[in-house]
Amino acid sequence: MEQVYRYIDENKEMYVQWLQDLCKLPSVSTCDQSMKETAEVVKQYLSEAGVPAEILDMPGQQPVVYGQTSRDKESTISFYNHYDVQPEDPIELWESPPFAAEIREGKLIARGSADNKGALMARICAVHAYQKVYGRLPVNIKFLIEGEEESGGSRHIKHLAATQPELLQADLCIWENGFVNNDGSFEVKLGNKGLLFVKLVAKGANTDLHSSQASIIENPAWRLVWALNTLKNDRDEVLIEHFYDKVAKPTEGEKEILEQMDLEDEEMLARLGLDRFIRDLRGNELREKLVFQPTCNICGIESGYTGKGSKTVLPSEAWVKIDFRLVPNQVPKEILQHLRNHLDRHGFQDIEIIANEGTQAAKTDPDHPLVKKVMQAASKMKGIPPRVILMNPGSGPMYALCQQLGIPAIGFGVGNPDSRKHAPNENILIKDYLDGIKMAATVIHEWA
Amino acid sequence: MEQVYRYIDENKEMYVQWLQDLCKLPSVSTCDQSMKETAEVVKQYLSEAGVPAEILDMPGQQPVVYGQTSRDKESTISFYNHYDVQPEDPIELWESPPFAAEIREGKLIARGSADNKGALMARICAVHAYQKVYGRLPVNIKFLIEGEEESGGSRHIKHLAATQPELLQADLCIWENGFVNNDGSFEVKLGNKGLLFVKLVAKGANTDLHSSQASIIENPAWRLVWALNTLKNDRDEVLIEHFYDKVAKPTEGEKEILEQMDLEDEEMLARLGLDRFIRDLRGNELREKLVFQPTCNICGIESGYTGKGSKTVLPSEAWVKIDFRLVPNQVPKEILQHLRNHLDRHGFQDIEIIANEGTQAAKTDPDHPLVKKVMQAASKMKGIPPRVILMNPGSGPMYALCQQLGIPAIGFGVGNPDSRKHAPNENILIKDYLDGIKMAATVIHEWA
Repeated sequence: MEQVYRYIDENKEMYVQWLQDLCKLPSVSTCDQSMKETAEVVKQYLSEAGVPAEILDMPGQQPVVYGQTSRDKESTISFYNHYDVQPEDPIELWESPPFAAEIREGKLIARGSADNKGALMARICAVHAYQKVYGRLPVNIKFLIEGEEESGGSRHIKHLAATQPELLQADLCIWENGFVNNDGSFEVKLGNKGLLFVKLVAKGANTDLHSSQASIIENPAWRLVWALNTLKNDRDEVLIEHFYDKVAKPTEGEKEILEQMDLEDEEMLARLGLDRFIRDLRGNELREKLVFQPTCNICGIESGYTGKGSKTVLPSEAWVKIDFRLVPNQVPKEILQHLRNHLDRHGFQDIEIIANEGTQAAKTDPDHPLVKKVMQAASKMKGIPPRVILMNPGSGPMYALCQQLGIPAIGFGVGNPDSRKHAPNENILIKDYLDGIKMAATVIHEWA
Repeated sequence: MEQVYRYIDENKEMYVQWLQDLCKLPSVSTCDQSMKETAEVVKQYLSEAGVPAEILDMPGQQPVVYGQTSRDKESTISFYNHYDVQPEDPIELWESPPFAAEIREGKLIARGSADNKGALMARICAVHAYQKVYGRLPVNIKFLIEGEEESGGSRHIKHLAATQPELLQADLCIWENGFVNNDGSFEVKLGNKGLLFVKLVAKGANTDLHSSQASIIENPAWRLVWALNTLKNDRDEVLIEHFYDKVAKPTEGEKEILEQMDLEDEEMLARLGLDRFIRDLRGNELREKLVFQPTCNICGIESGYTGKGSKTVLPSEAWVKIDFRLVPNQVPKEILQHLRNHLDRHGFQDIEIIANEGTQAAKTDPDHPLVKKVMQAASKMKGIPPRVILMNPGSGPMYALCQQLGIPAIGFGVGNPDSRKHAPNENILIKDYLDGIKMAATVIHEWA
């Protein structure tokens, strides 16, 4: 294995360059931007690594890059990643352009560096290095690389899982992402929350009006405020009837693992300029809420004049975008129905809901032998045991791609606690990226 | 007088052209756009009308155009108008570009056509026509034309009123605006609501975060929603303690005038695509609320991702812009203090308030003899008596410029019930513009 590590170190400039080049492609899926081009580039890197790949295209959906080595080994691992990224907005808060992929003070700063191009490229590089050193792989490898993770609800790849499950079949799936903790240990993830994304729209008059009319004409921005106020209280309790019906308490085993999780609370608060978490939570309660509780989050709201200075207008429309992170057993379409019922019951029949299909949460058993194998590889490579996150508070299609097909999944990656995923100045440490390549190579090697 | 009317009709193309040229200047004061240039152009038109004018400039404020004819007559009327306009946003809803000043189906469509360049230019044209026909004026005339009515709280001209009241002194002030009703009668306005404009800002973490953190990190958009919800209920009752303390009920005399006011309710609802007014009000209650009740209106709100598609982000900031239209005796700085106290009392000490100075409401006595004289002129010119609006539900600096100086004020203008002031497709009818010129000329003539 030392040989592979050495090869990675000797070629680190090339591997960093590959990642920089990938991060320069502004593949924002929600804006349908540079998507086909990025898929092509990813396919080329797979070829470079000796993995035959093809682009699976479906009308109206973003292409999936599917790579597969020869199938002559006894077992198979798959790598799930995505090449699409979140919008770069608010652009003015970036210290360097989001798609310039600049390296400063040992960090690569780019939209997508942490989520998810860094991990994606680390895995391609690992296969590349392994084949260069050994000329062969001890395990069959599949790459499932999609372009609808950040928007579009992973439709295309979920469709493949439902209609051609043999394409995705594997003994273990290495999930897209994970952090390196401040103490140098890997954070490995065994599950994902689900997601329901909705837009609520309130409408008033058919045109904006002079705000002098506000005494007599209803303002949709106020209606939206009143409707939102019924959804959640200031204790962060979601007030939608039946929302919590299927939310399970953690088991004793899960509680034990939760206690070992280190949130680095104090560092987090200091880094974010905050003096408290929601409800002043700390310790186990804080961890439990993060991992096992669903959310109802305003991710965007707009009405009326949003330019500089003042404009005294009575807006004709107001909207809010809300994401619900769901926990196991919460079903997106049921939550959507509960939301509709709730709004109706509170007199907001006029507020329209626009929703996508949503994603269910997934969990992998921490005691699964292959999961344990990956954790051992992480310990070996880092000299310190990984920390387990039972469920990533973020989302992804793990339920459809793994749980439903009976495939255990475990995620690790190249991010850090200050990676600013989905936010300005998203970044990874170059050191973590190189370790990520080594970690993926170690997992392949330990398989033998 | 017939001679003047004839002169106006014979020169209508020129007068319309003057207004189109003025409307092509995008003088959005809140964006400090084309302001000096527009003031210069207004000054040139005054010269053209034989009114010596100067530009009064003050650092950091928008120039006032001050015009004055020879002061040899016994009495003086002043015309108050403004050359600044509201932002054109949302631009995509305009049927023709807001500063193209296109004429279609007898309408001039332009930002500022109704508010307030149409009335401004009508008055300049009236003086022009009158002097062309008679060679002299029967009354001294002052033009007070400012550029901070739509933003900036009329600071410069209020400063002039406070420090050089002799510049503004007059027997009567013809206020900026008014409509022509669907039945052809003028709507004359005898007062203005006041205005307090505030921005509330809620802050969270020092950066936007991945929305997976929403279980444990407070979201400022939710805080803003909860704070807003305490300000007003869905009966449109403002819940800020002491907000209504100084709001007076209309007198019996005012109620009588109110009863004669025709809101053209049904037409308004149909035009706006609505089926009800606030609280299902109709008739006298509706009119009384419009004229005598203050407002608390969300004119803009923003947080998080407002682009297309989805972005699952936990925003670091949220803000709302609110305009309060105030009624007589409500003092802006007192209302601001009540708002601060209210937010503090409800646990929102962290929400910052950014406010401008504000404007107090003003009322003119409908029985003032000079006011009656203008109403008679309106009846004579139109052949139908004007309808009186005791208090314009919009705002303006009438309190500082007139009421405090003991000058009665009455407004009439060239708008129509579908003029869409402050909104896309702002417009006036060319016919109303020409009648507005004639009406101003009639007022001058009747003075003799």
